[in-house]
Amino acid sequence: MITTEKQYIEPKITLVGAGPGDPDLISIKGVKALRQANVVLYDALVDERLLAYAPEDAIKVFVGNPSGDENFSQEVVNKLMVDYALNFGHVVRLKGGDLFVFGRGYDELDFAASYSIETDIVPGISSAISVPGLQGIPVTHRGYSESLWILSGTDSRGNLSPELKDAAKSRATVVVLLGYDRLDEIVELFQLEGKGRLPAAVIQNGSMPNERVAIGLVNTIQELAEEKGIDNSGPVLLVFGSAVELHHDFQRIRQFFEWPLDQD
Amino acid sequence: MITTEKQYIEPKITLVGAGPGDPDLISIKGVKALRQANVVLYDALVDERLLAYAPEDAIKVFVGNPSGDENFSQEVVNKLMVDYALNFGHVVRLKGGDLFVFGRGYDELDFAASYSIETDIVPGISSAISVPGLQGIPVTHRGYSESLWILSGTDSRGNLSPELKDAAKSRATVVVLLGYDRLDEIVELFQLEGKGRLPAAVIQNGSMPNERVAIGLVNTIQELAEEKGIDNSGPVLLVFGSAVELHHDFQRIRQFFEWPLDQD
Repeated sequence: MITTEKQYIEPKITLVGAGPGDPDLISIKGVKALRQANVVLYDALVDERLLAYAPEDAIKVFVGNPSGDENFSQEVVNKLMVDYALNFGHVVRLKGGDLFVFGRGYDELDFAASYSIETDIVPGISSAISVPGLQGIPVTHRGYSESLWILSGTDSRGNLSPELKDAAKSRATVVVLLGYDRLDEIVELFQLEGKGRLPAAVIQNGSMPNERVAIGLVNTIQELAEEKGIDNSGPVLLVFGSAVELHHDFQRIRQFFEWPLDQD
Repeated sequence: MITTEKQYIEPKITLVGAGPGDPDLISIKGVKALRQANVVLYDALVDERLLAYAPEDAIKVFVGNPSGDENFSQEVVNKLMVDYALNFGHVVRLKGGDLFVFGRGYDELDFAASYSIETDIVPGISSAISVPGLQGIPVTHRGYSESLWILSGTDSRGNLSPELKDAAKSRATVVVLLGYDRLDEIVELFQLEGKGRLPAAVIQNGSMPNERVAIGLVNTIQELAEEKGIDNSGPVLLVFGSAVELHHDFQRIRQFFEWPLDQD
């Protein structure tokens, strides 16, 4: 005799930060969550090799780049996430970088909570710290920088982030995500503070084999980044601050300018 | 016939960030490095369960807390690291948190480089971002905070970090590491900016079973942290900014004060 039982589905959503790009930079906890996924929702910044940690029969859904892709607005992703959880159980929402550094992780947590769905959080390695670090640029280092200020290039309305002006005045290492489009305006903010010769870096596809790096000064960084072929085809991060001096490529700048110089 | 060969030792040092505390928050890449370690040098913030990833016959050396323990100054750790690499091969230097957020990772890289020893970097999950995040406090969130400023409570000479004054003026989420000892002075800086009613959090042992959390306002946070029994027996992190409002414990503060209020 065959009996059919209605299976009880317990909806759950786990937000997992996948790290800066290199698939080995996900955490053990993130891998454990993937192994217990019924559904994985992953975005454009996630390496698809990570999907292999999920069970073969888990549903894998690509949701584009929620902050840039009109086909997958944050509202659409939120709704998909909850729909899948209610119908299939455990959804792992796999996000590039960390969840909360301009990652809109809280939007997703909040939306899940409005449906009383249990949520769990697995933080990721933030590109803002790790991508400079992998290049040998310490975001803080005694005598160079005693703090780190992480900003987005634009605010939620697409305007140049007003806090960049304050950051340019500060002594912090300034890391700007989502700002390459506005590099000319950001450079100008530093120049207005007399920091044209502050060391600066632009890094695309950090931690990945197709990484591109430009190391220079505020005054030269835009031209150098273009020479290196840096574009918007992959995530770009800007770094401003004395700690950039510690990158090995800075050696030739040091020789050229007879570094250190007074700021002009 | 028995022949003895002199084994050629190739020295190598891999700096690995172990993450905020939970041993499952180390990266896959960190685990892979540990599996190939001849020696592991680990500090006080590292969960000893992580040592099980290293081969059984690997040498495991506890090096205290280099920033606080006079028996293991940074100089001693640097020297041990190089000595072990030259004598035993691959040294994994396992550090709590991330390597470069007040982690002195660059000191170690630089010292290894002065002996021409090959180095590799495996970034960790920074407590500055992940510890608030695990508590449901997003360090950035549209309408609450558009940037994150990470500082140390004291500078290299033990003085209150002069940049804290600028941070208190800013609209960034301000995260302070190594600052619990000076909480009274830091609170005063925010009060001087008229931010006595800015939401604030103090979190000890983030991500660990013995985590302690105090959620309040600048004006009340010190008393609340003491009530919760927060002390200096484990790492403490301070968070200042509107995003702290999103923590579920803030609900009762909201009700008590009929939030939102004008800043006083």
